[in-house]
Amino acid sequence: MSDTATPPSTPVTAGLVIIGNEILSGRTKDANLQFLGEELNQLGIRLTEVRVVSDVPDAIIEAVNTLRARYTYVFTTGGIGPTHDDITSECVAKAFDLDFGPNPEAVKLLEAHYTARGDEFTPARQRMANTPVDAVLIDNPVSVAPGFQVENVFVLPGVPRIMQTMFAGMKHRLTGGRRMVSRTVSSLVPEGRAGGPLTELQARHPETEIGSYPLNDRPGANIVIRAEDPEKADAAALDVVQMLKDLGGEPVLQEPDGA
Amino acid sequence: MSDTATPPSTPVTAGLVIIGNEILSGRTKDANLQFLGEELNQLGIRLTEVRVVSDVPDAIIEAVNTLRARYTYVFTTGGIGPTHDDITSECVAKAFDLDFGPNPEAVKLLEAHYTARGDEFTPARQRMANTPVDAVLIDNPVSVAPGFQVENVFVLPGVPRIMQTMFAGMKHRLTGGRRMVSRTVSSLVPEGRAGGPLTELQARHPETEIGSYPLNDRPGANIVIRAEDPEKADAAALDVVQMLKDLGGEPVLQEPDGA
Repeated sequence: MSDTATPPSTPVTAGLVIIGNEILSGRTKDANLQFLGEELNQLGIRLTEVRVVSDVPDAIIEAVNTLRARYTYVFTTGGIGPTHDDITSECVAKAFDLDFGPNPEAVKLLEAHYTARGDEFTPARQRMANTPVDAVLIDNPVSVAPGFQVENVFVLPGVPRIMQTMFAGMKHRLTGGRRMVSRTVSSLVPEGRAGGPLTELQARHPETEIGSYPLNDRPGANIVIRAEDPEKADAAALDVVQMLKDLGGEPVLQEPDGA
Repeated sequence: MSDTATPPSTPVTAGLVIIGNEILSGRTKDANLQFLGEELNQLGIRLTEVRVVSDVPDAIIEAVNTLRARYTYVFTTGGIGPTHDDITSECVAKAFDLDFGPNPEAVKLLEAHYTARGDEFTPARQRMANTPVDAVLIDNPVSVAPGFQVENVFVLPGVPRIMQTMFAGMKHRLTGGRRMVSRTVSSLVPEGRAGGPLTELQARHPETEIGSYPLNDRPGANIVIRAEDPEKADAAALDVVQMLKDLGGEPVLQEPDGA
């Protein structure tokens, strides 16, 4: 126990709602969960729950309302394009019981964009300018159609490339907590041998979270130690190394991540 | 409307609970959602909701109980290994309010396996033989430790290779409905131009579900028509082709999937 250690901070958490039949049918592979999990962790925000729901208003509204009450921030991905199956924005308005209609700033942006291209600002494209009243827009430098924020809910597109750019442009709006650091110890000691001692080790390091993830191709595991305090993560990691050596293994402590 | 068309069947649905901090932190990329979405669709079962939850008992119990009441079948992946962070089995027992302990058949299987290898049936390995009382085991031909079924809930491991083999061995227990077929029409017509006509087209084909998915690398979209009745899917697909031609596009109707 270090005298200089700061007390654990209040955890800052996030929920994610992934919207789209194409994800549930397996047609499209989601890439947004992993990206946001990692990015939020960098900001000291812990992605705690994800729901993947279909393009059905009640399903979207329920997920948004449950998660926004439960977590510091909520992100949605998908369903904000110009076609009839893009219903996320309207559902978020319903979730907050807010009026829904053309956002003057979004209308201006989109109209200017299509006019500059000599293209038509069609009714379908006009749909992309609809937001809950007083929503704060999220810039889209890739394809112009904005996302938006209502209170703690951030509405983002599903296309990973566009979502990632927009997230980069809005993440300064988020206030993170203390970042979790992690240490990884790899060895060929089977989980079935390490499991018992690891349970005791976890009990001796209550301010760390220890996970064991079996290797894909042979017996053995990556044991991952996560903690807010780097010193506590290091102490637990060294204990894991010793425990695996005692079991006859040759553990490798990977280069620290986020020290 | 075809005279030979059968009426829509009662939909057979599924929920999926993906368990594990490593998925939420972005450390591990989930591969089970897409696999199960596709496999279930082949069986005429519609994956309707997915929840990704952390290794926290209340989170797992809540997700299992909500989804098992809501859908025909529920699958869980992850958290059934030998280490302290593998808590899924115990949580499923709690969700059903069932006693939890050594399953005689699982004990026999695992003990024989480790004995045959000259290896030890450690307390950690013994944990993998614990199930809710009277659970029906799911064979694991890869690494022996079984999954199990309680009522409509199927508990599977997180490692994709093992999960996939186990699913193949248990899917005969599932009774599917009528399978959804899909048709895909691709074109370079931007969604913002096709969106208006497509809304009307969807209204004219109420027994189909039409989704529009923008291309990743240039304007245009894949328009996907899903329906139980192949004739209805075909009729809508031909209308989509005509609509895109009317907009000056050169649509391509992909080879039918699941005709």
